[in-house]
Amino acid sequence: MPASQSMKGICLLGSTGQIGVRVLEVVRKVPGFRVVSLAAKTSEEAIRGQIAEFAPDRAILLDPAAAQRLRAGLNGSRVEVGSSREELFEAIRDPKVDVVFCAIAGAQGLLASVEAVKAGKVLALANKESVVMAGTLLARLARETGASIIPVDSEHSGVLQALRSGARDQVRRIILTGSGGPFRTVPANEFSGLTPAQALRHPVWEMGSKITIDSATLMNKALEIIEACALFDVPESMIDVVIHPQSIVHAAVEFVDGSILAQMSRPDMRLPIQYALTYPSHTAPALLEPLDLARLGTLTFEAPDAKRFPSIEFGRRAARQGGTSGACLNGADEVAVEAFLKGRIRFPQIFDAIGHTLSAHRNSADPSLEEILQADAWARREAARFLHVDNPIAAQS
Amino acid sequence: MPASQSMKGICLLGSTGQIGVRVLEVVRKVPGFRVVSLAAKTSEEAIRGQIAEFAPDRAILLDPAAAQRLRAGLNGSRVEVGSSREELFEAIRDPKVDVVFCAIAGAQGLLASVEAVKAGKVLALANKESVVMAGTLLARLARETGASIIPVDSEHSGVLQALRSGARDQVRRIILTGSGGPFRTVPANEFSGLTPAQALRHPVWEMGSKITIDSATLMNKALEIIEACALFDVPESMIDVVIHPQSIVHAAVEFVDGSILAQMSRPDMRLPIQYALTYPSHTAPALLEPLDLARLGTLTFEAPDAKRFPSIEFGRRAARQGGTSGACLNGADEVAVEAFLKGRIRFPQIFDAIGHTLSAHRNSADPSLEEILQADAWARREAARFLHVDNPIAAQS
Repeated sequence: MPASQSMKGICLLGSTGQIGVRVLEVVRKVPGFRVVSLAAKTSEEAIRGQIAEFAPDRAILLDPAAAQRLRAGLNGSRVEVGSSREELFEAIRDPKVDVVFCAIAGAQGLLASVEAVKAGKVLALANKESVVMAGTLLARLARETGASIIPVDSEHSGVLQALRSGARDQVRRIILTGSGGPFRTVPANEFSGLTPAQALRHPVWEMGSKITIDSATLMNKALEIIEACALFDVPESMIDVVIHPQSIVHAAVEFVDGSILAQMSRPDMRLPIQYALTYPSHTAPALLEPLDLARLGTLTFEAPDAKRFPSIEFGRRAARQGGTSGACLNGADEVAVEAFLKGRIRFPQIFDAIGHTLSAHRNSADPSLEEILQADAWARREAARFLHVDNPIAAQS
Repeated sequence: MPASQSMKGICLLGSTGQIGVRVLEVVRKVPGFRVVSLAAKTSEEAIRGQIAEFAPDRAILLDPAAAQRLRAGLNGSRVEVGSSREELFEAIRDPKVDVVFCAIAGAQGLLASVEAVKAGKVLALANKESVVMAGTLLARLARETGASIIPVDSEHSGVLQALRSGARDQVRRIILTGSGGPFRTVPANEFSGLTPAQALRHPVWEMGSKITIDSATLMNKALEIIEACALFDVPESMIDVVIHPQSIVHAAVEFVDGSILAQMSRPDMRLPIQYALTYPSHTAPALLEPLDLARLGTLTFEAPDAKRFPSIEFGRRAARQGGTSGACLNGADEVAVEAFLKGRIRFPQIFDAIGHTLSAHRNSADPSLEEILQADAWARREAARFLHVDNPIAAQS
């Protein structure tokens, strides 16, 4: 695809993951974008195919050995291959890049997000952890540099669309929906027998394993409450969570006159990806099969069960506290999910570990990036200690 | 209530009817509006109470004897009482009037709507017949005078709100919902035994009798398709109708990327009334009890049954034909509904009369007001002749 003045340049971080692959699917079909750079962790084979198709200027593989093999394989090509964090940051700052699409999973996306916002780019953010950990910091940086942060979470994308029906001071309530996950109807006394395999069988969304477990614990909603507070600059009390198993209504905004605008679509990440790239416009083509409400027939809604799923209250607490609480919550969750996936702990221990870590945390208001990373590292150590598991990799490593 | 520079002046037509009374309820609670004039047909007692409360400059009662009694009773007050159409039009044109709220039922609202648009006012239009009969004419006049037409129909108000999520050329489809009316589940072979009393028992909305029968026949959706085409300048093929018995989702807009923005609220006309007055803002206070999706639990959707309810196809045909077809459809419907309410015809004969009249009509493209009124009168005569009933009052009388 030839470069063009009118085309927007994209730097795609996490290009070989679940979201990254779909971003490229969208870029393939929606006109107006050029892939300037691709970055992945280790998936040499996958990125090689992407390079062949999208002909970026740069490719980053954070695994040096894999990067070396890739470089050798691309011998003679004009594609620059890097593997260091500094090279990743250079790719983000590249003047040819308009949009940094951060599709890195987990807390590791944070530093890249900060770099994109510092560089004044449009940050299309599929990595909710960045905002959960450092929402206030990112918002302040964005005000300074003129960067904008566009959420790719389906719920927050829905909020963004619905918000356009009125001005921000006309908003009374933001409603985030959640499918309720695979254990929506499982009684609490069966929770300790639940296996990773059961948790990974998500009823609606097809996602990475971390986010699928977060969906089973409803920790995804906890993180999304914090994310919404930061992105839309509202207090936690203005955010409601409603369980909606069909995942057709993704979010809604209630205005001060009581009118509710809800965003609907099939549960498919390609739409929020496309909207993040084309915001504030809705652009053709539609990549999803049209939604036929009459054929769908029934949409159901229910309140989340705070007893079986204490996660939402954890999220509200962290959102109210602000500061480093989001980083703490997320760090503890990542450790607990990892331990659960490895079969080291039982399902309800995820809640125990997060609740313990959040309570033990000494919150630091308006933190620097340094303090956020320290809180993340502390929470990981604390959760690991509590669960008697190894201390996994922290965000800054 | 004292007059104020910053307050918007309202001329309320049909102030004693179902909608008019609710408009005043809204004006009572939403700050920023002053009632400059009130107009009703005959309800002397009701308008006397409204005058006492809202202290308008003028009141119009179209029944001269009732107006005379009202005038005598207001002896010494500064309220001017009129009863002629010319006095009604003067009230509409009054420079102190910013918003003309047309809540006159049926085709009789048309001339008042035309006058408001000619005077360059904001026309808050609860009278869908005006747009059904003369949509093209009103749109052309509005372009000339700078008037704006804001729909008060809950569906079209919902569309207006949802449309704000994108630009007009980003719209792919407009979805109007309908409760399905009281006969939604009644088999066709029982239609001829249905009584006016059964038809007037609407499951969700509390409305005037004409519109309640239109809801039972789904002729309201037929009229709303034509209304939507005119108001939003889209072809009939871009409008979908979905039956939604709970009447919580009032309308939705699908954009070219496939995203759907839906407007929801309790079924209560006070919200579309308020929105028409405050458009494009959502303003406090919320007059309706908040909508709790989790407590509602279930929303259902189904396709309308074109066999039992041929009305929607009539509406589509008239919308495609344009010209005087809307006036024809509406005139025939008014005669048939009147005859049904009086027990002169059976329920399915409403469809027969409308179908016959629409087929017999010689459409006239881009008609003048004169031609529209002629088409209306012709349709009424033709429908009455077909049904062997008296020819009721035409729009222009």
